[in-house]
Amino acid sequence: MKKLTCSEFKPGGLYMGRLPYGQDLITSIEDFCQKSSIQMATFSAIGAVSSFTIGAYDQEQQVYVTATETASLEIVTCMGNVSLMDGNPVVHAHIVIGDKQGKLIGGHLFSETIVFAGEISLQALTGKPLERSYDDKTGLSLWNF
Amino acid sequence: MKKLTCSEFKPGGLYMGRLPYGQDLITSIEDFCQKSSIQMATFSAIGAVSSFTIGAYDQEQQVYVTATETASLEIVTCMGNVSLMDGNPVVHAHIVIGDKQGKLIGGHLFSETIVFAGEISLQALTGKPLERSYDDKTGLSLWNF
Amino acid sequence: MKKLTCSEFKPGGLYMGRLPYGQDLITSIEDFCQKSSIQMATFSAIGAVSSFTIGAYDQEQQVYVTATETASLEIVTCMGNVSLMDGNPVVHAHIVIGDKQGKLIGGHLFSETIVFAGEISLQALTGKPLERSYDDKTGLSLWNF
Repeated sequence: MKKLTCSEFKPGGLYMGRLPYGQDLITSIEDFCQKSSIQMATFSAIGAVSSFTIGAYDQEQQVYVTATETASLEIVTCMGNVSLMDGNPVVHAHIVIGDKQGKLIGGHLFSETIVFAGEISLQALTGKPLERSYDDKTGLSLWNF
Repeated sequence: MKKLTCSEFKPGGLYMGRLPYGQDLITSIEDFCQKSSIQMATFSAIGAVSSFTIGAYDQEQQVYVTATETASLEIVTCMGNVSLMDGNPVVHAHIVIGDKQGKLIGGHLFSETIVFAGEISLQALTGKPLERSYDDKTGLSLWNF
Repeated sequence: MKKLTCSEFKPGGLYMGRLPYGQDLITSIEDFCQKSSIQMATFSAIGAVSSFTIGAYDQEQQVYVTATETASLEIVTCMGNVSLMDGNPVVHAHIVIGDKQGKLIGGHLFSETIVFAGEISLQALTGKPLERSYDDKTGLSLWNF
């Protein structure tokens, strides 16, 4: 695939919400989508975490390198989407977190990231949802087109 | 509250605009919302500042630790929302700023952040606006549900 | 201009897509807009790059200071817009990229940033597109109002 390939969607519900204290950031979004019958969405969030797991993809080895830490940090940006994998809504998101000196780290967001507080803006999308499957070239689960 | 709780909104106007040179970033957005009768919105912005005030929340002490500095920096991302507090539209936003070496700092955005140039994308939302009030558990002004 | 000045748009198509492996990030978005007759849009993207070019604006000297590097890094956030310059759709975007230790750098996104993988959410906008022209005060190409 040599060009940007897109599917067009219609806007579904536009949700503004409060991320749940003490709960897993990714799971809370996936559970909301499951119960609201949302299969495709784009979202952003800001807030704070009490612990986090982030990672980056090793493009040579084709594995994620991850780190988990317990720390009170700001969610400076969190941006991602919801689409289908094995028939279920799954989150793919990246996050920037920061400490009291304004120092930032970030990467691919994993579960075992626990919310202290947070606000999400989630645009549900209607139309044929995109599905993830294994991509040979990158080793990642990418959208089929 | 153990789950992600959301309100659903309908899209209002979708505004693309130019942040005002020499003016306060937060106040300029709040003034625009006030005069445009926008009570609820989600937005993002990129650009540059000539000075900034950022902070992070001390989750133990329940106070914001802030820092103000005069410096010419990029607004690498700024992401936030507008909702009601005491009946007025107020901005809650987080920002990532960067210098000429690409070095980044960021956190909760405060006033006394002065725009050099910038572009905003603001999606106004119609429906019952969310209102902030004091939350015992976190010490923050969070949305009521 | 002392206030935030905006144009109001109607939502056009809402596109979710896959950034093309081995291609230029900016050019792939501009080509998509050109062939889809999109003149105005707001977008965000996450993913990974195999090389990048970022910069920051020297507000005194009125020039961009840029750096190009070959490195496998996450696109932690990329946020921007599409509008017209000299009659063509052009991207203005800022990017945060991160390494395997979660260390971040970022700034204004330039061409010669090559996609490894990535996902874009692009909201096309209908209405009179904004056009960029030279702004005396900042030395930047800003939207005319």
